[in-house]
Parts: sequence; C-alpha cells; structure tokens
Amino acid sequence: MERIKNVIKDITGIDPIIIKNTQVRLDNLTKPLGSLGRLEEMAKQICGITGKANPSLMNKVIFTLAADHGVTDEGVSAYPKEVTAQMVYNFIAGGAGINVLAKHVGARVVVADIGVAADLKPDSKLRIKKINYGTKNMAKGPAMTRDEAIKAVHAGIDLFEEEFRRGIDIVGTGEMGIGNTTSASAITASFTGASVEEITGRGAGLDDRGLKNKVEVIKRSLSVNKPDPADPFDVLSKVGGFEIAGLVGIILAAASKKIPVVIDGFISGAAALVVFKIEPRVKEYMIAAHKSQEGGHKIILEHIGLRPLLDLDLRLGEGTGGALGIGLADAAIKILTQMATFKSANVSEKNI
Amino acid sequence: MERIKNVIKDITGIDPIIIKNTQVRLDNLTKPLGSLGRLEEMAKQICGITGKANPSLMNKVIFTLAADHGVTDEGVSAYPKEVTAQMVYNFIAGGAGINVLAKHVGARVVVADIGVAADLKPDSKLRIKKINYGTKNMAKGPAMTRDEAIKAVHAGIDLFEEEFRRGIDIVGTGEMGIGNTTSASAITASFTGASVEEITGRGAGLDDRGLKNKVEVIKRSLSVNKPDPADPFDVLSKVGGFEIAGLVGIILAAASKKIPVVIDGFISGAAALVVFKIEPRVKEYMIAAHKSQEGGHKIILEHIGLRPLLDLDLRLGEGTGGALGIGLADAAIKILTQMATFKSANVSEKNI
Repeated sequence: MERIKNVIKDITGIDPIIIKNTQVRLDNLTKPLGSLGRLEEMAKQICGITGKANPSLMNKVIFTLAADHGVTDEGVSAYPKEVTAQMVYNFIAGGAGINVLAKHVGARVVVADIGVAADLKPDSKLRIKKINYGTKNMAKGPAMTRDEAIKAVHAGIDLFEEEFRRGIDIVGTGEMGIGNTTSASAITASFTGASVEEITGRGAGLDDRGLKNKVEVIKRSLSVNKPDPADPFDVLSKVGGFEIAGLVGIILAAASKKIPVVIDGFISGAAALVVFKIEPRVKEYMIAAHKSQEGGHKIILEHIGLRPLLDLDLRLGEGTGGALGIGLADAAIKILTQMATFKSANVSEKNI
Repeated sequence: MERIKNVIKDITGIDPIIIKNTQVRLDNLTKPLGSLGRLEEMAKQICGITGKANPSLMNKVIFTLAADHGVTDEGVSAYPKEVTAQMVYNFIAGGAGINVLAKHVGARVVVADIGVAADLKPDSKLRIKKINYGTKNMAKGPAMTRDEAIKAVHAGIDLFEEEFRRGIDIVGTGEMGIGNTTSASAITASFTGASVEEITGRGAGLDDRGLKNKVEVIKRSLSVNKPDPADPFDVLSKVGGFEIAGLVGIILAAASKKIPVVIDGFISGAAALVVFKIEPRVKEYMIAAHKSQEGGHKIILEHIGLRPLLDLDLRLGEGTGGALGIGLADAAIKILTQMATFKSANVSEKNI
C-alpha cells in the first residue's frame, strides 16, 4: 500500500501554462478557430499531461491483462472460462482483434497473466504476474482478499514501470477475462448507485435468461459482500478482478509518469472508476476511446465526466477501442505539430 | 447529361451474397459474435460494394475540390474569399489539416480548382477543372446555370475516372470554398424542409450578428430562386456550388466503379444529399465519417439514413473527417482479413 501511496504522491495536476500556449499555437494554424474540435482538445490535454510543447507519440503501448473470475461458476458468461487462457495464446500468436487494431495504429501490445486459472506455457511475449488462479466466486464471498487486490495493483504498476523503460508515450488499457463484465457491473453499481438492471448488459452474448441470471448474481454479490464505496480497495477486492486491479495500477503509474491513458471499454472503465475514486485528479490523464454497447459503460463515463471519442457499438474489450482512440490521439498531435500557420502559408485570417 | 445518365446506369445494388458470406466469416473470428459492432458492419458493406471477399484498401484517395461562392458578397463568412485560393496553395504545399490527416491514414489528396475566383499558378499537384470564377451571388439569382452545374458534375466524374486509372480502393470527399456552408444550408433546406434557422450554423466562425445575416441571406436565396426539390439539378444549380456539384460527380462515379465513398462533413453531406435525390441506391455506397458541429449536417444524415462514425465536433471540411473515417474503414477490413478464427486459434466457441 505504501508503494501505491508513493505513486499517487507523484501525480500532479496537468500543466495549465502549456495548455494555454498550445491553444495559441492551434489558433495560428491554417483552419478556422477551434474547427478541429475534439482533436484540438486532445492535443491540448496531451501537451498538458506530458508537459511537452511538442509531444511525440512514437511509443504507443496497450496493456492487455488477463484473469479469470470465480463468478463464472454462476453461469454469467456465454463462453466457457477456458477461453481466457485460450485467448492469451491467441494474443501471443497475434491473431486477436487487439493484435490487428494495435498494429493498425502502430502500437505494441503487452500481454500479461495476472490471474488466469491455468498455468500458461512460458513465452517471451507473455508477462507472468499471476496473483492467483482466478478470483473466488463473489456471489458467495469476497472475490479477492484485500492483500490480493493490493498485490494486483502493484503488479500493474510493475508492468507499467518495466515497459516504461523501453519507452512509452501513450498507453491504452485492455483486458481479457471471461466473466469480467459481471465484475465491472458490480463495481459500477457500488460506486454510482445506478441500478444493477440499468448497468448490466449481455457481455459476450447472453440471451434473455442468461441476462436475468447475471443481474441476480450481481445483486447477490453486492448483498453478500456489502462493498463500501467510500473505500475503493474494499470494492475492488470484494467484487473486482485481478485484471481490473492491474489496470488500476497501470493507470495510476501512467499518470505518475505524465503519460496519457486511453481508456478502452466497460471493464477498463470500471478500472478507471476505481482510480477516480482513489484519486480524482487522474481523470485529467484519461481519454475515453469509445462508448461500449454495455449500458454500464455510459454510466461510468458520465460519472467520471469523460466524453467518448467513438461510437462504434464495440463490446470486445482487449483494448480494441483503446487502440482506435490512440490512433485519434496520434492524429491530434500531428495536427498540432505538422500543420502550417496562417503566416507561414500566407493565408488571411478571420476578418469579422 | 447523357454522360451522367450513363454513370448512373452503371450503379448496381451492393452484393447481398458477399455480405452474407462476410457475416459468416466475421462470426468465425476469435471474438464474441458482433462484438466489433460497426467495424463489422463496415467490413460487410465494403465487401458488398466492391464485390470482393477480401477487398484491399491500399489506394485511399481524398478529393478536395475548391471553388468560390458569389454569395460571399452578402457577408456570410468570417473569412475573406481570397482564403479559398490561399488554401489551395496550402493544400499543394502540404500544410493544411487535410494533408496531415490524409498522411496519417495513408491517403493521397487530389486537389482540384473547379471554380476558384482567381487564376491559380499551374502546379503538377493541382488539377484545373475550372467551370467559372466562382458562382454568382445566389441571393440575387441562380448561383450557376443548369449547364454549369452539369459541367461541374462532369468535371467530378472526370477527376474520379482519371485518378481511378492510378488505383482507387476507397474515396473520401473534401472541399474548400469560403461561403460554402451557406450554399450547403440552402441545399439542405430545399430537400429536407427543415427550417433555415435549424440548419444554419456559424460556418468558419460567425458571431451572432453574422449568423442572423446568414440565415436571412439563405432565406432570400431560396425565395429568389425557388429551387424545385423534385429536380436535384435545379436545386444544385440555383443554390449549390461548383465544388458541391463536383463532389456529386465524384460520388456517382465512385459508386459506378464499386468504390466505397466516405462522406466528410456538412458540405460533402450536401453533395451526398443531392446524389441521394438523383439516385437513392447510392446511399449503400456511402459511409458517414463524422457528425459535424453544423446543425444542418445532422439533418442531412438523418434524411439519408446514415449514422456517423465519429463525434469529434469537427467543422473544418477539406475532407478531414473523411480521412479519419477512411482510417476506420481500413481497420474494419483488417479485422476481417487478419484476425484468427476460433478453429485456427483453438479457442472454444459460445456454449449458451
């Protein structure tokens, strides 16, 4: 916990002077004032976060953390839990959605086992940060001990810091874990007070009966565990997951190193929500990539106060939406650094 | 007109069998069914348009057509009309927003003078298709003769077909023309019946007084010209612009060659609306890149029945939003063609 406190202590507000200067520069570029809308906002935000007038987004990194969830015993997912491990191998082999979209935007994917319920074959492309073989069934008691949750946050910080030495300019969050929309829904209900019915979606593809059962399981998990929203680590440990806790660590560590974080979908959003409850200032480091089809995601974004860039009905996770968001952030910085000014291009400025 | 009719005759419906087969393939990829949402929809659409099971989007082309508008005499723009020509030089020099964003997604930009009110310096990077030195002031009479409008559509067809020989797999529409949101607003009002107040926005940056004047000028243009919504060429010639007519030609020509068209913002949307009124089937070839900040754009998209991919408060034009949309289309095709299947990756399928 000391370690987490130290990371949080390193997180400062984003730089208002650089943001102001960036605005002046944007206003001198050959376009009507503000006409590139949210690309301009993002350029300012990234300059403010990094403290650099001309940030480079050369090193784009997506962390895809995998873990299992004991609550799958309650039949909350349309896919068998073995898929978590199988998909990790797919990530390593480069065949998953996140591999394709990360490559598309020029990002590298860091894959980690932070709590898969199987011993995975060692591979140079796989980081092993396993806290346990999946969480316990939260419908019957806490998913993790408080100590496990803290260790998983530490593991996320470690993952970030190890990769940071290789160079990171922007981060995307990603995850894989059969059952993890159930956990994300419980976290969302705990912090926002929205109804479980409103929050809970079909995840990877539940039918009506499956959805009804999932809602009941989440309600039972909340009533059995009584997570305390005033204590983010209590919520995280009782109804969270190892990958969600790991992403909490990654987001905190990124903010402490002045690196912008592109938040993917609902599960990543739940991690961002936990971070927001731990330290609200980290919101300034977050970019919401997209609005997921899971209803709870919209509730999270509104609660934190983030506006998504894309509305593509994505609900895959892995960091896929985050990858596309990183592509847009890259575009925003290129606008700032590559466009001509009115003066350099001999273009007349506004006259009324 | 014969030429336009022949192009339209070549436009077929998109291929339902390829779309069905593409759906089957998408459903075999290692992701929950439909979980990549609109990327999957776009992949199917592009396969259906091109008639290819594995389309390549190697050759991405954005057409940025420039022209002036006589209606600028009425003080409808925040920028002087000289900016149209100045920006053409900026496009050629590579310093404009469209240059940066086209490069970002790997697209080439074809810049054409289709009606700039100045003789531009010859340049290998500039296509001259000038129909006239800007349109006439539509607040006092028709912006173009019917013959000019048809010639401008022909010029768009020519531009497309010339470039098609160099290879085109996907097209983005773009434009530059001081005063052209006024023209686009008048077109939108003519076809949709929405009120001029609701449609008209601040363009490149009008203040309240300027906006009020712009609304009055548009109303006057409509009452002076009485464009007939049942006759798209009547609307196009009386309250359109050369760049809008040129884009009509480009969209029609692209559809006739089975090439998907990514529609940029409000002005491009007005061209798409004219096309939709000429031949509604072309809608199937259109991808709406983004929702512009100009209110009229939303009205156009709803009228045609297109859902924008991005919501970035863009209002620059030039094809900038279209460029970002092309990047997403590229991502969609990579998902289809590069992801592993459940079988190839040994991942279990849905069990409930």
